[in-house]
Amino acid sequence: MGVMLPQDFSKLEIIGEGKTKIVRRMDNPELVLLEFKDAITALDGEKKDTITGKGHINARISGFLFEFLSKEGVPTHYVSFIEPKYMVVKRLKMLPVEVVCRNIAAGSFAKRYPVEAGSRLKHPVVEYYLKDDLRHDPMMNEDHMVVLGILSSIEEVNEIKRLTLTVNKALSKFLDDKGITLVDFKLEFGRDRNGRIYVGDEINGDSMRLWDKRTGRILDKDVYRQGKNLSEVLETYRECYRRIIGEEPRV
Amino acid sequence: MGVMLPQDFSKLEIIGEGKTKIVRRMDNPELVLLEFKDAITALDGEKKDTITGKGHINARISGFLFEFLSKEGVPTHYVSFIEPKYMVVKRLKMLPVEVVCRNIAAGSFAKRYPVEAGSRLKHPVVEYYLKDDLRHDPMMNEDHMVVLGILSSIEEVNEIKRLTLTVNKALSKFLDDKGITLVDFKLEFGRDRNGRIYVGDEINGDSMRLWDKRTGRILDKDVYRQGKNLSEVLETYRECYRRIIGEEPRV
Repeated sequence: MGVMLPQDFSKLEIIGEGKTKIVRRMDNPELVLLEFKDAITALDGEKKDTITGKGHINARISGFLFEFLSKEGVPTHYVSFIEPKYMVVKRLKMLPVEVVCRNIAAGSFAKRYPVEAGSRLKHPVVEYYLKDDLRHDPMMNEDHMVVLGILSSIEEVNEIKRLTLTVNKALSKFLDDKGITLVDFKLEFGRDRNGRIYVGDEINGDSMRLWDKRTGRILDKDVYRQGKNLSEVLETYRECYRRIIGEEPRV
Repeated sequence: MGVMLPQDFSKLEIIGEGKTKIVRRMDNPELVLLEFKDAITALDGEKKDTITGKGHINARISGFLFEFLSKEGVPTHYVSFIEPKYMVVKRLKMLPVEVVCRNIAAGSFAKRYPVEAGSRLKHPVVEYYLKDDLRHDPMMNEDHMVVLGILSSIEEVNEIKRLTLTVNKALSKFLDDKGITLVDFKLEFGRDRNGRIYVGDEINGDSMRLWDKRTGRILDKDVYRQGKNLSEVLETYRECYRRIIGEEPRV
């Protein structure tokens, strides 16, 4: 790949777009460019705003954590981060599943089950949600994943679960060293053209719940879900950046 | 246990009561008497009626199928059936879980997931629902069962899953020989005072979806859920009895 100035990227064909990211075609058919938007959304997209600089922060944190995970031996789609808000990644066919891993009861889990919000679980819990807006992303178990044809065998389900728990262990340790508790997080997976499974999508304050170990301060998108004003939300993303990257954010 | 006339049972202390069954204390502290009511309910108890004779039919079918399963080597709470609507069973501490096994997409499953109602699944699916009316019986996966303290280990979860699949195989074959397709069913489990796990509760047209193999006619409580009149509902229970027991019902 030759050197490209950021402004060039807007000319690359858009081949996918979600609430917070745009996927663009690259010359190499095995790669795509992810552009992180400044959009922030919650409540299934009902709540929506723009926070200038959020795209940069989330792209940078994602790149940083994917690089860390790759070094830990986790197969990820990550190739490189490009300033200010891009990631070059392996082109994957994404599985229509959100894989959630929980260490502490929070969010929908604490509402759904008789368990005290904030309590640490006996062991990490892995959950699977079908990405299906019309059906409001129903929860699935391992059997469902095979029967609905999302994965081809229970062995593949186990592989995804094992990868998720490996990510949990590595990230929990990494973040703990930065004074952060990894409460829960969401991963998405995809296959390359040989069928090999990789961790894809993003890893940042939009996809993790992060609490300050000492004070319990929330360092993730929950501050937005809670209705805090946008400057406070930006400051939360900046603090997340500061803690994880170890540098002052430029935005 | 001495001979007891049915009318005596009303004097036995009630130690539990659900929508369709009453649990009574017996002299032997390791046993209890289950009385099957003529009540029929649907929609979380919002729809409710009485059908004279239903208690008898469901008690008799339960006794018959538990006896069959015991012979197949499945540990069940069943001790004996007593005319017209009683089962003597092992006293168990019930787990607050409904275990559902599905062979064909129907009911909530076909609504929740992108799968055609009536289609046979690639393999049987086992699901777990927390019995918790306030929380509307949320679905759980294997991890949840351990983390919420319902079972003590993943090995116990696996034991319950294995038992459920054994019941599915045996019942499917038995019913198939009677011209009935076992679409799905619900089991409940409990422990005796030594901690051993047994299949408890009931097995009948209230807990199974049964379709005539040839015509697709519904032979279970779904006719009531669909709003059919009560004489038609009774006739469905009678046909279920006729097919499974091989005798003309007395009611």
